[in-house]
Amino acid sequence: MEPVTLAFLGFGNVGQALARLLLAKSSELESRYGITWRATGIYTAHHGALIDAGGIDLQRVLADLAGGGQLSADPRRQAATDGLEFIARCHASVLFENSPVNYQTGEPAVSHLQAALEHGMHALTANKGPVVHAYDRLRRLAEARQLTFGFESTVMDGAPIFSLWREALPAADLQSFRGVLNSTTNLILSLMEAGQSLEQAVGEAQRIGVAETDPRGDLEGWDAAVKVAALVTVLMDFRCTPQDVERQGITGLTPEDIRQAARQDLRWKLICQAERSGDKVRARVAPEQIGRQDPLYTVMGTSSAITFNSDVLGPLTVAESDPGPETTAYGLLADMVNALV
Amino acid sequence: MEPVTLAFLGFGNVGQALARLLLAKSSELESRYGITWRATGIYTAHHGALIDAGGIDLQRVLADLAGGGQLSADPRRQAATDGLEFIARCHASVLFENSPVNYQTGEPAVSHLQAALEHGMHALTANKGPVVHAYDRLRRLAEARQLTFGFESTVMDGAPIFSLWREALPAADLQSFRGVLNSTTNLILSLMEAGQSLEQAVGEAQRIGVAETDPRGDLEGWDAAVKVAALVTVLMDFRCTPQDVERQGITGLTPEDIRQAARQDLRWKLICQAERSGDKVRARVAPEQIGRQDPLYTVMGTSSAITFNSDVLGPLTVAESDPGPETTAYGLLADMVNALV
Repeated sequence: MEPVTLAFLGFGNVGQALARLLLAKSSELESRYGITWRATGIYTAHHGALIDAGGIDLQRVLADLAGGGQLSADPRRQAATDGLEFIARCHASVLFENSPVNYQTGEPAVSHLQAALEHGMHALTANKGPVVHAYDRLRRLAEARQLTFGFESTVMDGAPIFSLWREALPAADLQSFRGVLNSTTNLILSLMEAGQSLEQAVGEAQRIGVAETDPRGDLEGWDAAVKVAALVTVLMDFRCTPQDVERQGITGLTPEDIRQAARQDLRWKLICQAERSGDKVRARVAPEQIGRQDPLYTVMGTSSAITFNSDVLGPLTVAESDPGPETTAYGLLADMVNALV
Repeated sequence: MEPVTLAFLGFGNVGQALARLLLAKSSELESRYGITWRATGIYTAHHGALIDAGGIDLQRVLADLAGGGQLSADPRRQAATDGLEFIARCHASVLFENSPVNYQTGEPAVSHLQAALEHGMHALTANKGPVVHAYDRLRRLAEARQLTFGFESTVMDGAPIFSLWREALPAADLQSFRGVLNSTTNLILSLMEAGQSLEQAVGEAQRIGVAETDPRGDLEGWDAAVKVAALVTVLMDFRCTPQDVERQGITGLTPEDIRQAARQDLRWKLICQAERSGDKVRARVAPEQIGRQDPLYTVMGTSSAITFNSDVLGPLTVAESDPGPETTAYGLLADMVNALV
């Protein structure tokens, strides 16, 4: 196999973790899958861009950025003024799209992925927006060109959720699911269970880099709703936007609610769920008190989990602990391997 | 695609559940995967055998058996005096091998699967014996003939375990795992937690058909050890027999042990685990007291679960509830679809 050429649109925590993972897995990718690669483009919003068809030294770029440097300090730098120009010029066969998520429109990620597919690249992303706003369009475009639109990392980071259903559960029909899919609110509820107020817990989650400066997307259930919409769209083959998901966040929960639940051996969790009902799917996000026998009961801190109910198996639960940029990066690597072999 | 021809060696609860599932999924298999099929052979130990290259009416066979009838009552019956003769004459391209498990040697399933592969059939089984006693031989034979040796149902019934690693976790290396893999002992421990003695709990498990007449294979940890050996062999690429697994069953646990644990908010579970250590893998089965934060804590009754630790993800847990012959049958169907598409 010819070396595959890779471009990174967005090179923050996840992009850099992916670069480290590619370097670490280089010989294993070759021996197990016959995959060799070189990076031909990196585009960042604030640290410049770099295009080199001959191959970029990722080790050096990582060191430069860690030292506070810019990509443009590299003499080989060729300018790209925006993402679309970068895609057109980056000489890659795989694009890793890691621009910030936009819940309302999915842009600019949707346009980036579409352009990548139109230029003959596999389009892989950890961005949920395109899955809920342009799934059919991007999937059809990818199929027509025999390319992959990959998005494994969009729900539960690198834990295999979409690939589980695509590859490991053939001829199974998903009837309903129920899960804890938003790390930030789950961490906050765990901290409140340990005695903190909502404000203290949000502050702590921000301090360790889990909650964003504006935490409303998590607290009001939008992030959870986007994930539910993505799962319903892809796994239940029913088009669902975040706005279609009945949504209640955790901002109404008080320390007294948490203590009251604990006295009954219960825990509050922000539960994400969807269920087929005739030709429709009902999807919702809301806090619920759950008991010890519930598979979601042990999901604490930033962990997440989902239970699937299908026509062929009893309840099947997948849970991940300790997610981070490295695990999201692994989901992108898995998408790459599945696209190429 | 030509109709695929199917033979059933062993047609007890699992074989019959598979036949029902194939009938129920018939049009879905055709529309989603282009797979059409007909059954050309059924062999049972005590109810006769049936071979018909033109196609066996599974609906009718199921009804006959449900009514206490014999396969040989069918006028089209062609005799096969043993499993090997049946395989040689059954005109099939897929063999579902469901003979009883033999922990010591894996026979006769090993010989059946080998014969099936030598006759050009995909060899699919829910029997753990061949995986721990003849994995290399059967896998190489299958590869050489571009056939599939499939065994998804051998651990956690139809829950995707082997296919998860094969298909959904590319370029990931398994470092260790820890799970509750034996349904019978887990049910017994759950019943003891509810106040029963070991003897009462075993009796109850036998009454509902979960424990065998001779329950020692489960109670002494042999079934769990075989599953650990299968996982270590296939997923960690390290040859391991059930005898290589350090093994302690649950027969030493008293109701007082269970109560004592409950007072500390702990539960006893028969924990199956394995861990890489240098070039070796250490594997063991033993009862352990676990606490509420453990993902295995909520695994009650006949449910099972496993947590995988790899080089690319945080702990990843897969759990299944309510297993039964139908879920084992689904694992065989999944193996079939994966073998054919």
